[in-house]
Amino acid sequence: LMQFSQRLINNINPRFIALKANIGQDEDFDAARKKAEKLGAEKVFIEDLRSEFVQEFIWPALQANAVYEDRYLLGTSIARPCIARRQVQIARREGAQYVSHGATGKGNDQIRFELTCYALYPQVQIIAPWRIPEFYSRFRGRTDLMEYAEKHGIPVPVTPKAPWSMDANLMHISYESGILENPKNHAPPDLYQMTKNPEDSPNEPDVLEIHFAKGVPVKVRHVKEGTCKETPLEIFCYLNEIGGKHGVGRIDIVENRFIGMKSRGIYETPGGTILLHAHLDIETFTMDREVRKIKQSLGIKFSEFIYNGFWYSPECDFVRHCIDKSQESVEGCVQLSVFKGQVYILGRESPKSLYNEELVSMDVQGDYDPCDASGFIRINAVRLREHNRLQGAAQKKL
Amino acid sequence: LMQFSQRLINNINPRFIALKANIGQDEDFDAARKKAEKLGAEKVFIEDLRSEFVQEFIWPALQANAVYEDRYLLGTSIARPCIARRQVQIARREGAQYVSHGATGKGNDQIRFELTCYALYPQVQIIAPWRIPEFYSRFRGRTDLMEYAEKHGIPVPVTPKAPWSMDANLMHISYESGILENPKNHAPPDLYQMTKNPEDSPNEPDVLEIHFAKGVPVKVRHVKEGTCKETPLEIFCYLNEIGGKHGVGRIDIVENRFIGMKSRGIYETPGGTILLHAHLDIETFTMDREVRKIKQSLGIKFSEFIYNGFWYSPECDFVRHCIDKSQESVEGCVQLSVFKGQVYILGRESPKSLYNEELVSMDVQGDYDPCDASGFIRINAVRLREHNRLQGAAQKKL
Amino acid sequence: LMQFSQRLINNINPRFIALKANIGQDEDFDAARKKAEKLGAEKVFIEDLRSEFVQEFIWPALQANAVYEDRYLLGTSIARPCIARRQVQIARREGAQYVSHGATGKGNDQIRFELTCYALYPQVQIIAPWRIPEFYSRFRGRTDLMEYAEKHGIPVPVTPKAPWSMDANLMHISYESGILENPKNHAPPDLYQMTKNPEDSPNEPDVLEIHFAKGVPVKVRHVKEGTCKETPLEIFCYLNEIGGKHGVGRIDIVENRFIGMKSRGIYETPGGTILLHAHLDIETFTMDREVRKIKQSLGIKFSEFIYNGFWYSPECDFVRHCIDKSQESVEGCVQLSVFKGQVYILGRESPKSLYNEELVSMDVQGDYDPCDASGFIRINAVRLREHNRLQGAAQKKL
Amino acid sequence: LMQFSQRLINNINPRFIALKANIGQDEDFDAARKKAEKLGAEKVFIEDLRSEFVQEFIWPALQANAVYEDRYLLGTSIARPCIARRQVQIARREGAQYVSHGATGKGNDQIRFELTCYALYPQVQIIAPWRIPEFYSRFRGRTDLMEYAEKHGIPVPVTPKAPWSMDANLMHISYESGILENPKNHAPPDLYQMTKNPEDSPNEPDVLEIHFAKGVPVKVRHVKEGTCKETPLEIFCYLNEIGGKHGVGRIDIVENRFIGMKSRGIYETPGGTILLHAHLDIETFTMDREVRKIKQSLGIKFSEFIYNGFWYSPECDFVRHCIDKSQESVEGCVQLSVFKGQVYILGRESPKSLYNEELVSMDVQGDYDPCDASGFIRINAVRLREHNRLQGAAQKKL
Repeated sequence: LMQFSQRLINNINPRFIALKANIGQDEDFDAARKKAEKLGAEKVFIEDLRSEFVQEFIWPALQANAVYEDRYLLGTSIARPCIARRQVQIARREGAQYVSHGATGKGNDQIRFELTCYALYPQVQIIAPWRIPEFYSRFRGRTDLMEYAEKHGIPVPVTPKAPWSMDANLMHISYESGILENPKNHAPPDLYQMTKNPEDSPNEPDVLEIHFAKGVPVKVRHVKEGTCKETPLEIFCYLNEIGGKHGVGRIDIVENRFIGMKSRGIYETPGGTILLHAHLDIETFTMDREVRKIKQSLGIKFSEFIYNGFWYSPECDFVRHCIDKSQESVEGCVQLSVFKGQVYILGRESPKSLYNEELVSMDVQGDYDPCDASGFIRINAVRLREHNRLQGAAQKKL
Repeated sequence: LMQFSQRLINNINPRFIALKANIGQDEDFDAARKKAEKLGAEKVFIEDLRSEFVQEFIWPALQANAVYEDRYLLGTSIARPCIARRQVQIARREGAQYVSHGATGKGNDQIRFELTCYALYPQVQIIAPWRIPEFYSRFRGRTDLMEYAEKHGIPVPVTPKAPWSMDANLMHISYESGILENPKNHAPPDLYQMTKNPEDSPNEPDVLEIHFAKGVPVKVRHVKEGTCKETPLEIFCYLNEIGGKHGVGRIDIVENRFIGMKSRGIYETPGGTILLHAHLDIETFTMDREVRKIKQSLGIKFSEFIYNGFWYSPECDFVRHCIDKSQESVEGCVQLSVFKGQVYILGRESPKSLYNEELVSMDVQGDYDPCDASGFIRINAVRLREHNRLQGAAQKKL
Repeated sequence: LMQFSQRLINNINPRFIALKANIGQDEDFDAARKKAEKLGAEKVFIEDLRSEFVQEFIWPALQANAVYEDRYLLGTSIARPCIARRQVQIARREGAQYVSHGATGKGNDQIRFELTCYALYPQVQIIAPWRIPEFYSRFRGRTDLMEYAEKHGIPVPVTPKAPWSMDANLMHISYESGILENPKNHAPPDLYQMTKNPEDSPNEPDVLEIHFAKGVPVKVRHVKEGTCKETPLEIFCYLNEIGGKHGVGRIDIVENRFIGMKSRGIYETPGGTILLHAHLDIETFTMDREVRKIKQSLGIKFSEFIYNGFWYSPECDFVRHCIDKSQESVEGCVQLSVFKGQVYILGRESPKSLYNEELVSMDVQGDYDPCDASGFIRINAVRLREHNRLQGAAQKKL
Repeated sequence: LMQFSQRLINNINPRFIALKANIGQDEDFDAARKKAEKLGAEKVFIEDLRSEFVQEFIWPALQANAVYEDRYLLGTSIARPCIARRQVQIARREGAQYVSHGATGKGNDQIRFELTCYALYPQVQIIAPWRIPEFYSRFRGRTDLMEYAEKHGIPVPVTPKAPWSMDANLMHISYESGILENPKNHAPPDLYQMTKNPEDSPNEPDVLEIHFAKGVPVKVRHVKEGTCKETPLEIFCYLNEIGGKHGVGRIDIVENRFIGMKSRGIYETPGGTILLHAHLDIETFTMDREVRKIKQSLGIKFSEFIYNGFWYSPECDFVRHCIDKSQESVEGCVQLSVFKGQVYILGRESPKSLYNEELVSMDVQGDYDPCDASGFIRINAVRLREHNRLQGAAQKKL
């Protein structure tokens, strides 16, 4: 995109390097390379970031049970720092003083890209065409852009664009804008590309076993078919496949952007949704109750930081470290069933569980004296009884 | 249960009053009355608490999006204070100085019952047979109890008991103990009583419209059939019916009891699950982002208080008041589809929404200057660039 | 200040209205009026905001125990919305479409002024000369400004300016910049204007009784002298007098600005510091423990919001409401001694205290059974013993 | 104390081992040894725990800025796990199955001792005489105890006891009970033993330089006298000396016990108070703003855990680890003045500071563009302006 703005601004042909990140989206990377070369890029980098995206971004988000505003699994939010990190790595290496991106001026992505750039390459200058008045006044809609492209021989897709915008990566696809801007409009059934419509999905569940160590999946096994996946990228892709097949992970939400406005987004996150369910289960199984409470609140903060673009920040570094610590004993295996858009936990086991079957049993006493509970309750009631006595409030409540 | 312990303890026939609360469980209340009378109860109260359970307990929990440890919707936790409140109301009115309950000595329910009693009737004495050594040593299992009942002419169910225990009310049924105590064991398919197995549920969704005012549902409409429900109890029962029909709200979890042990529970909460989805949606649509953050953290605390038995406590009063305040503008209508165990939000509208279609639009500028975002980002980056510069850490990260 | 920037920008004489807020600073308001008139102000408003500053801003901050970053009592932060509110009230009434202020481009005050303006008068345009390049490039230092003033007949103080900047109001004086910018430099002894140097302050304490109702002071009495103050403004001024006399409330801190940089500030807040001590005391005496915890976390958030300029925001409205609710029973009287920079709580009493002398007594048993504590402790230990058993970690710790 | 209860319970002479921990209290340890031997202790351990108390308990509390309910520095709370740890170490080593302590049945200390014991030695049995009815009914007051002692030849102090109880260690002395139980009563002037009355303290301040590394003090220097201390124990003792000399760290509070009642306590914490001020200062100077917020909330939780007796718990381990991580860059030197009960920060410097004098300067622009602030403010106002527009609330507020 750099060429647009630069030509507009300087009216000269700037030198530029093109970067295309492969983070799992469905795209013709050869065509992208050719297009960049045709447009005059000095160098073209097509970078396969899929493995590092899974291990360095999706895994930490999973460990945190990162969910923004109770629903959004942050598929776009964690992709941005992954891409921008590579962008500034290349920029530094190649001696580029400017970087550019095509994110709009109203969204979160501009912030996520740029905060990553500033955090990792503080001296860098950023060119964001959609915030340059000369640019966005010149190109007021798709038609303007198409005309410009035709005139300057820039290859563009010939297929008519869907009446919404879309962002895809290994973790999810998000849909927004266009007809989706009216929050009352239903998403059209043909919108989803990663997940099958649950109405058309198989009538039989797939049962999986997901093995965790230190809070991240280390093996997935299809119980019936015996299929096994053991590397991060393979595990995640396989869960996307199973989740997609059963229509798992579709949500339609209104969310609060960092920039202060509410927006409507539709997301599909098949593999991520399966993993969130499984991780929540094994985590509660192996983690102390009070540690869990603190970790939960850290996870919520972490999600806000990520959403707002602060992946590379002192606070995210700190919280990531703390969450990582909390995952030391999050180990074991969860059995679950995937069916018609849902994930059902079936059972779990772990060598590090804090679950004590004998202690909790209704049939065995275990190392537990029920009489202790009387004292426990009465001491907990001291405060409540005082409150009642002193407020004389019991009558009112009854 | 009072008669058991009292006879054991005092070896006399105490005077007692029996209370059976109807909070929506499927039970033969006439038979219960007869049984109590037969056992010598001076008075028998069969109290229909369903409406107050919905309005005074389920609605506030819904406003709070109350979920314990990310998954449990607290169906049992909020029923206990509802029952115990009536129990102490009757005890006070009838001049009873003792109240009793049949909860076990390892669970949460004893705490929930008793803290409510102490909070509302501080002078009350509580008899909890399952914490009295003479009682629980005498009755070590089901067989002992059955023999005792037969010998003393206490009518008991003749159907063989399921190999797990169950607690039912209007909001949910919970299953635990017995064969479920091994957390690896799958729940048997015939366990669920409130929800249909999604594998056998209808192949077509039901689409509902749920209208909210001040954060609680005021009307539910079946879009296709036109069915309408407008009172709290009817709304909730209807959502249970629809949710049950489509197998919505089944979870299998390990949770942390207040008493310090982990336990495994299986829950089905059909109507409550539909409402949680709908409320989350309309709330985010109408509530300011920063208010939402604070309210979310209050809701998490509220859930812990409720789970631990502190419904009647200064802190719950306080948080309930705050959450209530937050719901003033939570108004509008959510369309959703219920299908095969899932709830899909389809769209929403509200006269009090903070969503501004023009402002957020990618196609219209609205009252927004994209250039402002540059300053916003750069100021947010000040701290990050300083951190980088002073730590000299960029290189390490790249 | 408006005239500076406008003349620079438009090279014309704009029409303008002048506002000077009296929030308790020591200033010649007549001279200010004359100066404004001389400079061509169409109207000049000298507004006495002292009473509303105390009641609507200082009191809510006190109820919240508002302290930013553990030390700063927010004296400037709460004055800004008070001033800006009146500014936009006048602007709306007089039909002004622009407002202006003289805050610098690196500070917090620009944000506090402007967010208040935007929140209460969304259509307003803001002129901030110190962020207008033509202005700040033209006036690079005090000399430039002095020359300009002389040339244009603008009256300016003839006394040489102290080598730091200062902001005063009823609640505090803050000092920063100049020689204070080096965080290692000690504050010069002659800097403080509101408080006496504790080395020179009286060698005898003053003992006061502060009476609270709903979390705000309603009466102050000097125990020895019998002096009584009963209106908000008089109470606060009297506490400033006593606090100032004894050198109370001086702090020297480095704080984090909203804009992302650390700055060094020196503050003196005599009356506010006395009140904070007294309020903390009566609050803990009358408020339930668990309510206090929640209220404390709300107070910390409130402080951050205020510091960052969000006094008029949905979140501040919400939190203020919650905190207000928490203060319903915060009533009673605190005796304290003020001496040599310190405030010592001596004792307290309240008709609404939750303190129960008999219950807590070491000499009387009260309505308390020590045996209950054994159960309480053992149940609290369940989780710890499990953790030890399962982690096998005891040995390592010992 | 074990002998009392055991004799009472078993009416036999049990074998027992005596432990006296030296955590800095002023006590005749030889006399204690003789007394224990005289009473029949098989072994007597007099353990000097002062160094580990400072390094393993006071230092982590300092890193956390641990303060309970905004005022109490937790001097007793952190001593209990230090003592109990050694107690169970010895019990394990010596094969003792029982441990005992003399804490009352209404206080926090019983919980702190016992939770530590259970956490580190889950199989241990605990004998708490003051919770054994036979014991506490037998000894209803001081006179009963004195008579018993005389009769059984147990040496007791002959000096008349002060009309309050007291607990002393290296960090603080606490006073409670007796005449202090009336929260309105002033503390008598002769109560304090660790700090001089500020009215009688020197009329000249002492100025110190405290050097920190990783959030703990590594050197203290008296600026004028040149005195230097560099080991943890020496540093802490020296600060106690200086703080005590100037009457620093006296508080009189009502606090909320874990057991659900409010109690009144008077504390003096001279060295700890100086360190808290210094640590807060150097921490804010060197720690990122957002990390600080998270760390502050962790510190508050940590304080509650410690107060409640959970020093040895999964949650405390976790939080301690997180806080430790946050202290990595908390390094540098603080100058402060100690005078008449107060600690005044004078200045600070650090090689790891995030303070940037040029960036923050009012006189130099630095790498900062004031225009960015306009965008920052306007974007922050988006949400507020929307709120105003949609609520139509501006008028009401004005």
